[in-house]
Parts: sequence; structure tokens; C-alpha cells
Amino acid sequence: MALYKAILTRNLPKVLTNQSRLLSLVPGEPEGPSVKTSSVPGPKSQQLIKELEKIQQAGSVSLFADYDKSIGNYMVDVDDNVFLDVFSQIASIPVGYNHPGVLKLLSDPHNVRTIANRPALGVMPGADWPEKLKSVLLSVAPPGHNQVTTMMCGSCSNENAYKMMFMNYMKKKRGGDDFSKAEMDSCMINMPPGAPKLSILSFRGAFHGRTLGVLSTTHSKAIHKLDVPAFDWPIAHFPQYKYPLEEFKRENQQEDEKCLAEVEELIEKYSTIAPVAGITIEPIQSEGGDNEASPEFFQKLQKIAKKHGCGYLIDEVQTGCGSTGKMWCHEHFNLESPPDIVTFSKKMQLGGFFHSSDFMVKGAYRIFNTWLGDPGKIVILQGVVEAIKRDNLLKQVEETGKVLRSGLSSLEKKYPQHINSLRGRGTFLAFNAPTPAQRDKIVGNMKQEGVIIAGCGDLAVRLRPALVFQPHHAEIFLGKLEKVLSQF
Amino acid sequence: MALYKAILTRNLPKVLTNQSRLLSLVPGEPEGPSVKTSSVPGPKSQQLIKELEKIQQAGSVSLFADYDKSIGNYMVDVDDNVFLDVFSQIASIPVGYNHPGVLKLLSDPHNVRTIANRPALGVMPGADWPEKLKSVLLSVAPPGHNQVTTMMCGSCSNENAYKMMFMNYMKKKRGGDDFSKAEMDSCMINMPPGAPKLSILSFRGAFHGRTLGVLSTTHSKAIHKLDVPAFDWPIAHFPQYKYPLEEFKRENQQEDEKCLAEVEELIEKYSTIAPVAGITIEPIQSEGGDNEASPEFFQKLQKIAKKHGCGYLIDEVQTGCGSTGKMWCHEHFNLESPPDIVTFSKKMQLGGFFHSSDFMVKGAYRIFNTWLGDPGKIVILQGVVEAIKRDNLLKQVEETGKVLRSGLSSLEKKYPQHINSLRGRGTFLAFNAPTPAQRDKIVGNMKQEGVIIAGCGDLAVRLRPALVFQPHHAEIFLGKLEKVLSQF
Repeated sequence: MALYKAILTRNLPKVLTNQSRLLSLVPGEPEGPSVKTSSVPGPKSQQLIKELEKIQQAGSVSLFADYDKSIGNYMVDVDDNVFLDVFSQIASIPVGYNHPGVLKLLSDPHNVRTIANRPALGVMPGADWPEKLKSVLLSVAPPGHNQVTTMMCGSCSNENAYKMMFMNYMKKKRGGDDFSKAEMDSCMINMPPGAPKLSILSFRGAFHGRTLGVLSTTHSKAIHKLDVPAFDWPIAHFPQYKYPLEEFKRENQQEDEKCLAEVEELIEKYSTIAPVAGITIEPIQSEGGDNEASPEFFQKLQKIAKKHGCGYLIDEVQTGCGSTGKMWCHEHFNLESPPDIVTFSKKMQLGGFFHSSDFMVKGAYRIFNTWLGDPGKIVILQGVVEAIKRDNLLKQVEETGKVLRSGLSSLEKKYPQHINSLRGRGTFLAFNAPTPAQRDKIVGNMKQEGVIIAGCGDLAVRLRPALVFQPHHAEIFLGKLEKVLSQF
Repeated sequence: MALYKAILTRNLPKVLTNQSRLLSLVPGEPEGPSVKTSSVPGPKSQQLIKELEKIQQAGSVSLFADYDKSIGNYMVDVDDNVFLDVFSQIASIPVGYNHPGVLKLLSDPHNVRTIANRPALGVMPGADWPEKLKSVLLSVAPPGHNQVTTMMCGSCSNENAYKMMFMNYMKKKRGGDDFSKAEMDSCMINMPPGAPKLSILSFRGAFHGRTLGVLSTTHSKAIHKLDVPAFDWPIAHFPQYKYPLEEFKRENQQEDEKCLAEVEELIEKYSTIAPVAGITIEPIQSEGGDNEASPEFFQKLQKIAKKHGCGYLIDEVQTGCGSTGKMWCHEHFNLESPPDIVTFSKKMQLGGFFHSSDFMVKGAYRIFNTWLGDPGKIVILQGVVEAIKRDNLLKQVEETGKVLRSGLSSLEKKYPQHINSLRGRGTFLAFNAPTPAQRDKIVGNMKQEGVIIAGCGDLAVRLRPALVFQPHHAEIFLGKLEKVLSQF
């Protein structure tokens, strides 16, 4: 710990610098962040933002990066500012920038041709596709899941997972896959019985994507939804816990029960309007504010889904791929059986979903599109999965998570007027500020200190480091956060 | 022509082979297709299909390809069958397999790092992103369009284009972008006024994608839609022409008028149910059977859209990127002003849409997602655009299209009992068989002859060669088709 703290000081003795470099899982990382411009974005980023604004909506762009110079947990921007990246491109960079294992795979001639020749995977996949699915994707599948369908991104993964739940629901109702002429004809003009009135139950605060189907189950921020028509589907309350959890056990348990009762009420209410074919839920509501629910909540929700014949989809787009200390966050929940579908994207490089073989939809072309994912992204994911296994990154996440959690817990005690409600798993952690303005100030001041973090929900600061974020990076982060909080 | 015909024969004199090789825009192409296995898929493909079936729905897989061996217009499968590819992975391979220009770009170290480090483009794009958007994507933008937003695939391009039309419609209705508290609150639970009852008008036979929003505007095949809930949005008839066009001018004009009248009726009918915020249409309905409509139809439809304040979206996912002889098919229509939005994907390597600056949605994060496309795909597209410009591929498409059209026209006259209704533009051509079974037989027998083509709609055979498909390839295709038809 003394070593990591020492790294925070400006003038590092050479020996420490070298030790710090030796410590890093991605070789070549700088010794710490450094911001050279008086404000971020610096002048070069500002100039590029102006250029971009001429050709597209650029209001969300915070800076321009130099991805040739970025390395490991450090992102370098075009003004040569060096940031410790604790957000990793909205939780989508698994093993840091320019990971040597990934770069090596991308220089392999066969892999280059895989990237150059993206096929229609559902029609003419490449010779190594089944093997790659097995050795890369299925090697990290959630327990109990031996099937995988690949997609392009998180939204279309959830869209297609919903379709799979609708199809399975109707198959059970119909007693098979033989469609009637009435179904065949009516679906073509969007009418029942072929296009049935069915629904997906979601939760307030949820985020499942931005295309129209999944957007009807997204309820995290108004700006995502304004002016866009939506399906009238049931929306239940997600538990809102009081922190620290150990002090509010009874209250939080009651909160679970209240929300679960509402789920059952809604399923019954919608049975005559648009029966609930599936329930979609994040293991930790991410965009909505890093809201967590207890393993018991997820266990009981699964029982309700089974009781009413609804599919049970766990959306692991943001929580998946290791950052909670397990490959999949729902592995923390001890469910009595695997969820019907688990969707992924982001750190997994491409979208898709795992499911058990009994949830497979019979019949070709029902879950289908031109690309069905991208074998070029499996090349990168192969490097990610190899690094996870070789460097024992899930263990690493657990260890770094402990350092982060203990450090944040101390800061929470020292600055209760500034931060509270520390929560999460592994390095997938969050805490609240008392107001949205103060939250934004923490995020903004941290950036000026050379640390990228981000908000979610109204009050939360979320940490989303890569899996190669180590204790010495955590110490740098904690030191900077303490500096920022102490200056408030 | 004699040269090309000679290539069809099995034992080519060496000089011809060399000439044929010299003729090809992609060096190293074989002299012609060759099928070695008694049936396709061959034994190795069959074995791999069995393997794939264990882990995902593989009912649509027709064979496994060897993309290391495939080159230009020739796809080699795992059984060493060599196919002339006139379908190019559902119209998504623009300059053939392993194009040297693309492979060269993929070996550039900066480009490798671009692929390795996919950022959240809406937050921290790479330094060269504005320049790449300009020099690659906007350099081939439809006339009048100076804005581009990138996405991942065709479905999410259309989904987001629809959102853009909804937002623009509501902005006009509201007189600005200042949302009321009622809108902010109600949208969070999928209710008006924040999530307004609005619709997108589409056409029977259309295909705009498979996620739930765009699926409500897709009406090409029941299998795409069965069991999936849909929005109740208006659906008009798309013109069904009689062929040859020059013989049925009056009838086809009347067909246009009938369909346009229905569009106006539907817009008025839905004005009280779910006002039409936008019209979505393909320049040639592709999945639905290569149904074309006249330039006058598209001109008048645009006038109707303007009159009623609806957005006008031309979906060029399949027709775009050159295969009609122009970069964008709607350039053939002489519209009085650019369409509001043009969506793309497939041959463009990534999804997205072009639009004019007055259609830009104000406010960040409204049209947004984690990746917003993929700069790694722009690397490939750069090679494609360079080839299009350097090799004058639009002119090439026009020339090859003439050879194809004239050859098909002769075959249509020779075998009127087997094929009819030749239509299309450039090399984006189609003809009908008298029955679905006969259509499937043509496609199947051609595959056994070493030529990959595909069906669409109930009766159509569609051609979707790459832009490097040249007259000598066309002659091979025509020779094989004649052989197949003559054996019926």
C-alpha cells in the first residue's frame, strides 16, 4: 500500500516507477495520470469537436483520444493529457488499450482475412466458426448454458432475446410450431393472432437499449425516450435499498417483497391485455443508477416467472464479462436453475445471448439477420478470454475490488457530506453524491485530475475499470478522489 | 464475348486462362467455378453443420466457406468447391473476397490499433474520426446530404432513423425542443404525451429489418414476423408492375396512382389514431421480391410526405453502395429535393444514415448508443471507396449490368416457360420463375453448377454480385444459367 501511495506523488524515485511498471498486467503503462491542459477538453479536442459538429450531433463528445498512444488503463487524448480510465468507454474495454495479446491476434494473417471477409454467418460461416464459438464464447458461458447466438450490439441482442421469449411463449400456448393460415396472414399486417398482443415486463430505472422494442423496457432517463412511441408493457418498481445494507436488512427485505408483489399483480393485470411472455432485468441496474437487488430477489423473481410461464432474461450487457468478480454477475445469485436467456455485448466485443438448449427456437430464419454478429470481433474476444484465463483476471478483479471498496468505505466515513451508499460487486462499484450537481462536480474535477469516471442515474458515480485494473491503479484513483473531495 | 464463352469450357487453353486472369479487377481469381462434390453442401460442410447445430440454430446454413482461399468473385468452400458468387453474402461484399486494397489497409499498424481499441464514438472518438467520416463516408454521400450518423447494422440504422423522424415531427408540432414536465414524466412509463402515439407508414412487401420497431414496417415474409408483437402502423400497397414495362406503361401508371392514393388515405385515417411521422421505403423492395417502382412514384410520394409533414426515408441498406450503377439507387429518381434520411449498411460495412443539416436532432444523447458504429469498419470501407473511385466501379457495374441484362433478356425470350419479368438496375437485377418450386430449383441447380444466386419474395431470383463483377463473370453466369434452364 505504501508503494501505491508513493506513486501518487509527483516526483517519483526511479526505482518506484520501474516497480510500478513491472506491476502492470499490460506492459508499458505510464506511472500515473497527467493533465497538461488547463481544462479538459484541451484546445486540440475542442478544435476537433467543432469539426465533428459540422457533420453530426457531437454534443456528447467529451474529448478526442489518441488510441495509438493509449495503453492498458491509460487513455491519452489528442492534447497529450494522460488519463487513468475508470470508465473504459462505457464499460466496453475489457483488457485495456492496445493489449499485446489482442494486437498479436490482429496481426495473424488468417485473422486479418477473417476481418476482411465478414460473411453472412447464418448462411455461409467460415470453416472455424463452430470451433471459435466453442473455444471462445462457450468457454465463458454462464453455468447451464450450452447455446449461443451472436448479434451486433446490446440493443439487438435484447431485441432478439425478446423475440425468442415471444416465440417460446406462443409455442407453449399453441402446443407447437405449426402456424395457422390466420397467423401467417395476420402477422403480415401486424395484427393478432400472428402478431399477438404480448408484453415484456421490465423495471423502473432499467436500461435495455434504444431501439423501439427494448426502448419500451428502458426507463432510466427521459432523454432516451422522449418523442418515441412505445409499447404499453408492464413496468414494475425495482427495489430501492437503504445503505449500508447491513443496517437496513429488514427494510430492504420488505422492499423486495413489495416489488415482487407488484410483479405478480402486473402479470395478472396484463394477462387479458398483453400477456407477459418474458421478464427482463439487469443484475445491477447500470444506466439507471447502479441499483442492486438481493440474490433472494432474483431467486424469487425466477420462481414467479416459472409459475406464470414467462421467460426470464438476465441482461448482462454491462455487468457481464468479469467486472463483478465472476464472469456473469448473476452467478452471485445462486439461482435454482439457469435463467432462460443471458444477453451480452460491450466488453464481449460483439452482442449475443446464451441460453439452454430447451429454449432454442425451432425453424430457420426466425432469429436471423444478415451478419448475425461478426467473426472479426471473436478474434479480439479470443485475446480477451485468453488474458482472463492466463492472468486470472476474475481473481484480479476481486482483489482490486477489495482495495477500491475499502478505500471508498474510508472516504465515505471521512466525507459523509459528499459521498454515500457505496455498493456493487468486484470493481463494478458505485457511490452516491447528495445532489446531481455535486455528482457532476466530482466527475468533472476527477477528469481535471486525470481520472475518468462517470455518472449514472441522478446521483451515482459509477466505476467501470477494465479487468486489468490493479490495486496500484485503485490507489491512484483513491488518492485523486480524496484530493477532489477534500477540496470541496 | 467469344473469350468469355470460351472460359466456360472445362479445358481452357492456357493463354485464355491468363487473359481471363488479367481481366479481373481482383488479381488471382480462378478461371471459373468448379464443383467437386456430388452434392452441395459437401461432406466437410455437412460435418460442420452438424457441429454447429449442437450449439445454435443452424437451419439456414447452406455451406461452410474457406475465406482464406476465397478471392474476388469466387468463394471457395471447405470441400474445395469453387463458386462464382452472385449473391455476395446477402449483398454485403462490395469488392469481392480478400481485396488487396482492403488487406493492405488492415495490415497498417494505425488501423490495427483502430480495430483493437473500439471507443464509445459518441464520447471519446479517435483523433482521425472527423477526417475519416469526411474522406470516406461523406465522400460518397447522396447529393444534398452533408450529415452522417453511424450505427452497427441495417436494423438499428432504420430504428434510429425512425426515432429521428419521430423527434423531428414532434419538434415541429411542439414548436421546439423544450419538453414539458408531463412529457418528461409520461415517457418514462411509455405513455403519451412523452411517448406519443405516432406511426411510420410502410409498404406491403417491404423489408426494413428485424428488431421490433422496424419489424413493424417489414412485410416480406411471415417467418420474419410470426409470434412477435407489432405496432399498429399503416401499411400501403407497393406498386406491382406488369412486365415488360414498355408494354404495360398505362397499367403500371394506374398502379402507381392507386398506391399513392392509398398512402394519402392512410395518412388521413391515422391522423387521429397515430399520426404518420414518417414514410419508409426501399428504392427497390429487395427481400420482398425485387419489386421496383417508377421514379415518378418516388417523386409523388415525396410530395405527399411534404404535404402532410411526414419524414421521407429511403432505405438503401440493400440497394446502396453502387450496385444499381449509381452509389445510391434513389439517384435514379430525380427527386425534387434530397430525401430526409437515407439509411445504409451491408456493403458499406457498417450501418448508419445520411441526412441534411435541417433534419439534425438538437440535443445530445437522443440518438446515441455505446458504440455508434465502429471505426474498424471504416478502415475496410476506406478500401472499398478507394477501389470504387480508382477502378471506376460504378461505370463497371453499368457495363456488366448491360451484359447481364441483354443475356437475361435473350434467355427470357428463349425460355419464357421458365423465366420472366426481368427487372432492376445496374447489376441489381432479378427475374421471376413461374412457381416458388421452380425458382428454388433454379437456385439449387445453379449452386450445383458452381454459381451462388438467391431467391427473394415468392418467385424472384435476385442477382447481387459484388461491384468487381465484370463482363467475363457475367458470361460465366449466363452460360451456367442457360445450361440449367435448358435441362429443365
